[in-house]
Amino acid sequence: MAAEPIPVTTRIVTLASRPEGRPTTANFRLEEEPLAEPGPGQLLVRNAYMSVDPAMRGRMEPTEKHYTSNFSVGGPLDGSAIGRVIESRAAGFAAGDFVRHRLGWRDYAVVDAQAATIVDPVLAPLPTWLGVLGQTGFTAYVGLRRAGEMHDGDVVFVSAAAGAVGSAAGQFARLLGASRVIGSAGGADKARILVDELGFDEGIDYRAGLAEGLAAAAPDGIDLYFDNVGGDHLVAALYALKVRGRVALCGMISTMEDTSSAPGVHHLIQAVLKRLSIRGFIVRDHEDLRPEFEKQVANWLRTGELVSRQTVVDGLENAVDAFIGLLSGANVGKMLVRLSGDDAAAS
Amino acid sequence: MAAEPIPVTTRIVTLASRPEGRPTTANFRLEEEPLAEPGPGQLLVRNAYMSVDPAMRGRMEPTEKHYTSNFSVGGPLDGSAIGRVIESRAAGFAAGDFVRHRLGWRDYAVVDAQAATIVDPVLAPLPTWLGVLGQTGFTAYVGLRRAGEMHDGDVVFVSAAAGAVGSAAGQFARLLGASRVIGSAGGADKARILVDELGFDEGIDYRAGLAEGLAAAAPDGIDLYFDNVGGDHLVAALYALKVRGRVALCGMISTMEDTSSAPGVHHLIQAVLKRLSIRGFIVRDHEDLRPEFEKQVANWLRTGELVSRQTVVDGLENAVDAFIGLLSGANVGKMLVRLSGDDAAAS
Repeated sequence: MAAEPIPVTTRIVTLASRPEGRPTTANFRLEEEPLAEPGPGQLLVRNAYMSVDPAMRGRMEPTEKHYTSNFSVGGPLDGSAIGRVIESRAAGFAAGDFVRHRLGWRDYAVVDAQAATIVDPVLAPLPTWLGVLGQTGFTAYVGLRRAGEMHDGDVVFVSAAAGAVGSAAGQFARLLGASRVIGSAGGADKARILVDELGFDEGIDYRAGLAEGLAAAAPDGIDLYFDNVGGDHLVAALYALKVRGRVALCGMISTMEDTSSAPGVHHLIQAVLKRLSIRGFIVRDHEDLRPEFEKQVANWLRTGELVSRQTVVDGLENAVDAFIGLLSGANVGKMLVRLSGDDAAAS
Repeated sequence: MAAEPIPVTTRIVTLASRPEGRPTTANFRLEEEPLAEPGPGQLLVRNAYMSVDPAMRGRMEPTEKHYTSNFSVGGPLDGSAIGRVIESRAAGFAAGDFVRHRLGWRDYAVVDAQAATIVDPVLAPLPTWLGVLGQTGFTAYVGLRRAGEMHDGDVVFVSAAAGAVGSAAGQFARLLGASRVIGSAGGADKARILVDELGFDEGIDYRAGLAEGLAAAAPDGIDLYFDNVGGDHLVAALYALKVRGRVALCGMISTMEDTSSAPGVHHLIQAVLKRLSIRGFIVRDHEDLRPEFEKQVANWLRTGELVSRQTVVDGLENAVDAFIGLLSGANVGKMLVRLSGDDAAAS
């Protein structure tokens, strides 16, 4: 492999202003910045793919949440990315390696090797390492296994099931022994994809009626609800859950931008009457499960039982649109931005 | 003990009509009914005490819930009671025994011996067997130990803490090793009783400001919320809970009569951000814990570490008022109706 020229600048995306409600392009800025030389223990990485995910919206808020650091106005965004090492000043990493790290939203990054993990593009394609084999998939896996205490034979309902975490959660549920997997998505096309491409037993277009759809898809009720949405979806699920049912609270995209019109906590009386368990979780608390997860998912990919769907947008200049599109459900599966043609296939 | 005359009728309370919102005396009727002779396996019991409890309100609704049978219009009410056996046609039960059974709301009852348990009035006074040693206490115990997964050193918050379950839950929490126990109640007098008589560390008069009171009483947050109320209390607790905090959902008296004005599920985003566990429970699922519970509580009563508070109303003719009063918080501790002077002391 020929040595390539070392770039001295990189494009980055910064937060120009804090969004109110749904973000717009005016909240972001594409800038050119000088690129430092990697110091000892650091890697210079050319990013191949970066992730956009709903949690980034929360990090744009002025007040800190409980497990992330918020973005500063004027400062760069960051997030999961995968890239090729161009120059390594850290033991165990060599030029040409692909690494997963936290400095997305830029073409090139100088990364602390401690915060980078080598990924194997032969074991699974690069985008997969940001999707079903990455935090996205791990979130789905932890939610089912830990917060949701999934049992063999469970009837499982997943909201935002065409999304990154949802499409993983629904498939994992099936592969982990669910007797029936139901997903909801916005629109008939997405609902059809759930069944035709992702192996769900039922796809509900929630715009056409969620409670009715759920009652028809699971007349005897559901055992486990994997909640990516909150709001109306959570309420519908509370009523559909069987006695001793469980809810894994993964995210509440419905409430991130709107805290005014959500329905009442009084629906939680269902949780008393039916002895439900409702649990929030974050993956960081469950790293012990990661080796099992990676082995399991790599195996499902190998056998073809698991479909890794992505929606890929090209170029950092389109990353903001990808992010905004994600928040309105423009994606099926993991939403990624391709930052270079530097796929494993090209190596 | 001289044989007493066998009654041929008994007074009972029936449901005249289903209440809408808060019940009124017009929803009930005091009637005189013939009393059958006990058949084989049955006991004739003169009731000494009966319980009124909030769950009875739910059983007056037209639609069945998930774990109880609803009352019929025109039919008798029932509920926990303790009485003296006047005549036994069941092995293992003798005239003079005190039994706990499910046929309250009447002066005399013909009880299936299978549904009756002998209680020992020497070990603890009769009212206690319907209170901290009965379902009330067991509910508090199960909620803390199972749904709430109480840990040593927890900061515990109990709502409706002057009530039957709440006053038991707060005291049990202290005795089970809580580092701090905070209770809420309606009015300054009740809040004071929590601290002065029941050993709580802090009593909050929620009418004077719940969120502020909670912030002052637990500036570093709470680990466990024992929820008897729902609604605003639950929302305040969601914000006060620490990361990995737990909620034991015991009942939602605030929502039984009013399903219109409760605040939004969007507050549940706190459960995601802080990885909270929120769990409903009913004691029937946890009977395995009862021997430990009875031993533990009897011991705490013996040592005087546990205070058994009751509010006692006299006579079946006042039972409806006692029940209605209960729903507006007229009681401190367990609300009971004394149906005869037949205390153990009188035997």
